[in-house]
Amino acid sequence: MSNIGLEDQDKLTLRIIKSLKDSKKGEFKLLLDELQPYDIARIFESLPKKHHTKFLLFMNPEEIADLIQELEKEVQLEVLTKLGIEKSGHVMDLMDNDDLAFLLEDLSPDKIEELLAGMGREESKIVQNIMNYPPETAGRLMTNRFVWISKHYTVREAANKLKEFAEFSETINYLYVINDAKKLVGVVSYRDLIIADLHEKIEDIMYKRVISVTANTDQEEVAQIIERYDFLAIPVVENEVLVGIVTVDDIIDVVISEATEDIEKLSASGKAIDFDTKAYVAAYRRLPWLILLLFIGIVSGTIISQFEETLSKVVALAFFMPMIAGMTGNTGTQSLAVVVRGLITRNVDKKMAVRLILRELNVGLIIGVTCGILIAIIALVWQGSAVLGLVVGSSLVMTLIIGTLAGTIIPLLLYRLNIDPAVASGPLITTLNDIMSLLIYFGLASMFINYLM
Amino acid sequence: MSNIGLEDQDKLTLRIIKSLKDSKKGEFKLLLDELQPYDIARIFESLPKKHHTKFLLFMNPEEIADLIQELEKEVQLEVLTKLGIEKSGHVMDLMDNDDLAFLLEDLSPDKIEELLAGMGREESKIVQNIMNYPPETAGRLMTNRFVWISKHYTVREAANKLKEFAEFSETINYLYVINDAKKLVGVVSYRDLIIADLHEKIEDIMYKRVISVTANTDQEEVAQIIERYDFLAIPVVENEVLVGIVTVDDIIDVVISEATEDIEKLSASGKAIDFDTKAYVAAYRRLPWLILLLFIGIVSGTIISQFEETLSKVVALAFFMPMIAGMTGNTGTQSLAVVVRGLITRNVDKKMAVRLILRELNVGLIIGVTCGILIAIIALVWQGSAVLGLVVGSSLVMTLIIGTLAGTIIPLLLYRLNIDPAVASGPLITTLNDIMSLLIYFGLASMFINYLM
Repeated sequence: MSNIGLEDQDKLTLRIIKSLKDSKKGEFKLLLDELQPYDIARIFESLPKKHHTKFLLFMNPEEIADLIQELEKEVQLEVLTKLGIEKSGHVMDLMDNDDLAFLLEDLSPDKIEELLAGMGREESKIVQNIMNYPPETAGRLMTNRFVWISKHYTVREAANKLKEFAEFSETINYLYVINDAKKLVGVVSYRDLIIADLHEKIEDIMYKRVISVTANTDQEEVAQIIERYDFLAIPVVENEVLVGIVTVDDIIDVVISEATEDIEKLSASGKAIDFDTKAYVAAYRRLPWLILLLFIGIVSGTIISQFEETLSKVVALAFFMPMIAGMTGNTGTQSLAVVVRGLITRNVDKKMAVRLILRELNVGLIIGVTCGILIAIIALVWQGSAVLGLVVGSSLVMTLIIGTLAGTIIPLLLYRLNIDPAVASGPLITTLNDIMSLLIYFGLASMFINYLM
Repeated sequence: MSNIGLEDQDKLTLRIIKSLKDSKKGEFKLLLDELQPYDIARIFESLPKKHHTKFLLFMNPEEIADLIQELEKEVQLEVLTKLGIEKSGHVMDLMDNDDLAFLLEDLSPDKIEELLAGMGREESKIVQNIMNYPPETAGRLMTNRFVWISKHYTVREAANKLKEFAEFSETINYLYVINDAKKLVGVVSYRDLIIADLHEKIEDIMYKRVISVTANTDQEEVAQIIERYDFLAIPVVENEVLVGIVTVDDIIDVVISEATEDIEKLSASGKAIDFDTKAYVAAYRRLPWLILLLFIGIVSGTIISQFEETLSKVVALAFFMPMIAGMTGNTGTQSLAVVVRGLITRNVDKKMAVRLILRELNVGLIIGVTCGILIAIIALVWQGSAVLGLVVGSSLVMTLIIGTLAGTIIPLLLYRLNIDPAVASGPLITTLNDIMSLLIYFGLASMFINYLM
């Protein structure tokens, strides 16, 4: 009853291999018949490659189109190549055009042309059209598999058109209503159709205040709208003319990938590294930030070296250095994470920005004073010097307040300048907080050096 | 055509206030008529509180039920209190029961009883039932507003039942098919109904391999299934009997909140802090981790103090300390983020774990050797000491390799032990990497101390 577990999958895989070896197409079809495309894809990927050809041979183009949409990009290309130009073209005609555009986007122009050559002319034009929109926009996510009706239709006529197009349309949750100039003027849900009388006019039952996006709308904004209004799909318009729809299943993928991107940026963990990424690729993607960090470390080192005299007089100052830098860096990241995540579901105007900065100032004060007093006492007890306690404690108060504010103001500023605030993550905040905390700490220490010795 | 911007909202708000002041109910209704509940809620929240009573007076219970589901928790309770027991009970009857359970979960038992008292008996029982499931499970998310049919129905009978229940059911994307023992045996989509002939039997057209979850299934797993299979809703069963459905709009909220939780844990930014959290609450939530970090800092300090003699002989060693600790901490976080995010869409078995650890070992090697050579050259040029370059460089090679491995192995271990790997974030990884990097660095330096001076 539930989705298939790993054990079931292993058993099923063995039976499928057997049916392939014995060339029993009927049995193979029976095994696959009640499986979801996602599960078929997982089984296909787990098979030894020598079975792939026969596997594909046993499936019809519709089934392959469903399967291919659930495969990893690399495997998708392998399959298309195996199928040959003609069959692959046929399969690509049947694929959702947004998925196809996603598959093609990283390929060379030559390879794209080669693949598109086998497709139907109209379908291939639609895909090329989608690929002309910038990445991460509604235009890239939209599908043309939707049903539109004229506002002059009756409910009966609409239901008939629906029946005709039910197999073709990706989701049949909403019917989009257009006027004589082909402009989008309304939307009717299937629920509305079911409840209405057959002779009612569509324009009398349709919802007129249609919420739509343009093809250039950022995918994050599309996700925000669908999330707010609990839509199952949203229409995409250009000059008020309906050109496609974005469906909720694509939006879930967007939400996941945007969150992953935020985490990648906040933890500076490198772009697009997953379990299948090769070691040298992962290292190559992680190195830039680490090398940047290395140079930031050199800057910190240079600052410390400026205070070499102070440090050589009171070596104990070094004991508290990692703590102050670490805590300042962390409080900045805390504030940053709150701002970056908050911006996902909320828009921030000037009033809100001021409120947020004041809030974080208060947070910084409370945190700074608490931690400052605590470390002052610890330093006093541990090193037996009240002045050292005072220097370490008051440094921490200051650095924590400034660190918190930096972690709030910088991403808000970037947001205002239309730059993704998550990029502020490592580079900006850590550098600033590191340098700032060392300057404050050693600055204070140098001022009190006579009392510290 | 598009969703309402901030300016439109301000204009609209002014017109709504005017209609309330002039007691023009007709005009008020007209203004609200074509707005989405989300937008009405934003306008309601932005109104001065003195207008709230009349606002609610002008709306019928159905409209209030739609509005209330889009409000912040605090405002929801204000509204219910304002409505009085009888009307609030009526509104709560009309709310989706999963949303209602979510609203009630943090309240005191007395307050819950008081609110439920006004509700219909059956509805209040359903809500109490939902609240008995553990938080973050399918049971808490599910709604009972779905349509079930008997497998003996014809398509015509199913369509009629659907028509009857269309207004009541939250989503009408799937009809769930049960047998004589009330067990879930199949599912039919609306598309299937539209395509089928009216006299066909449901059991002949239904999809039998239904994918379902139990009420105790973790919400993250439910989200994973819906995301994989592109479902719009998934049935929840207990002993194979259908007890509710979870819809895709709730799943988008789950995906967002789970990602936010991951970020909170990875950046140790404190639980559930958003733009509206009060300063002292935010500080209180952020402090535990910062105080922990403070004590970790003391441990690091103690280690450094053990090497006081080494450090006082070669003060230049302090210059490279923040860089080594910072980079080791960061490489650990990078690996951690990759593992934590990867686990969201993938299950990891032993084979995969070994593959991943070997991959990260290679990554650590490449990163370590690259950064190690780089810093050795910098140290040599800057401080004019080949031995110092060697000590700093080889320390970094070792700490980066170990840091990378720690960031991979620890979350995998926690995952294996069924502990959320994201908690490993700050506390474990940073402590370990900090202590380990200082020990290696000063250990090596002490060994070569005679050549360093």
